[in-house]
Amino acid sequence: MFRKILYPTDFSASAEEALEYVKKLKEAGTEEVILLHVYDERDVDVQWEVEAQIHPEEPLEKSRHDVLKRMLENGFDRLKELEKEITHFSFKTELIVEVGIPYQKIIQAADNLHVSLIVMGSHGEHGFVEKLFGSTTGRVLAHGNVPVLVVKPKNHPNSSTH
Amino acid sequence: MFRKILYPTDFSASAEEALEYVKKLKEAGTEEVILLHVYDERDVDVQWEVEAQIHPEEPLEKSRHDVLKRMLENGFDRLKELEKEITHFSFKTELIVEVGIPYQKIIQAADNLHVSLIVMGSHGEHGFVEKLFGSTTGRVLAHGNVPVLVVKPKNHPNSSTH
Repeated sequence: MFRKILYPTDFSASAEEALEYVKKLKEAGTEEVILLHVYDERDVDVQWEVEAQIHPEEPLEKSRHDVLKRMLENGFDRLKELEKEITHFSFKTELIVEVGIPYQKIIQAADNLHVSLIVMGSHGEHGFVEKLFGSTTGRVLAHGNVPVLVVKPKNHPNSSTH
Repeated sequence: MFRKILYPTDFSASAEEALEYVKKLKEAGTEEVILLHVYDERDVDVQWEVEAQIHPEEPLEKSRHDVLKRMLENGFDRLKELEKEITHFSFKTELIVEVGIPYQKIIQAADNLHVSLIVMGSHGEHGFVEKLFGSTTGRVLAHGNVPVLVVKPKNHPNSSTH
């Protein structure tokens, strides 16, 4: 029922709090944890526009490629840090970094990897586009096919004392 | 982290599926389970109007009182049936039936009883008013203060096989 967990993270405080619940689920039979970070492709485009204006001498395709490469490497490094945090729980782990529409990539990963549960924070660090179009967690809940444990951020009233 | 669970139920298939997760959390340290049913006060009013038209000879206050009494008794009986289902897990249990706005009563119970987690279905049997104004689960997630495990209904694609 909790055997294989998908833990999507945007590296926010809320996602960090959710990782504590992943650890705790070890006792309820969790064996595998997939750590997933999705860069919002719409934010990549914004970033690319910025780079193109800072370095107008660079060919556009090169600057887009560079932006993506840097993002993916950075995402992978940060996931490795989180993986270290759960090392002594002896989960089987998998790290995935993707670029796309976050809620869609999360639902796809949950379906394709046959996860039993998604554990995620309630409020992410909203990117520019997400601020306009609504929360990833809400969309995963509305459109996804597996149970979701939604964790409130640490500094939320009431959540720290229980 | 999962010590005291609030399990709000509208007796829907989705809520029933959520009870399976409550059982499973025993292994992650759950000791207490509060079973809560909230009658939507707006539905009570609709029901009352119906009764008043069927029995125009009854004083209005009496028919409202009768409707409420019957609902509360029925709700309590159904909670007792669910309590039986989890008997052999030796949880400490508490049964609560309330009348009000469901998401508000759920959040109040979670706060007042200092629960660690709410476990609930994603899609309830929507009452008339809820159909118009949105889902209880969505509102608990948006306005509540504790983590929520949202369980998809049993017959949902993918959810039955994992």
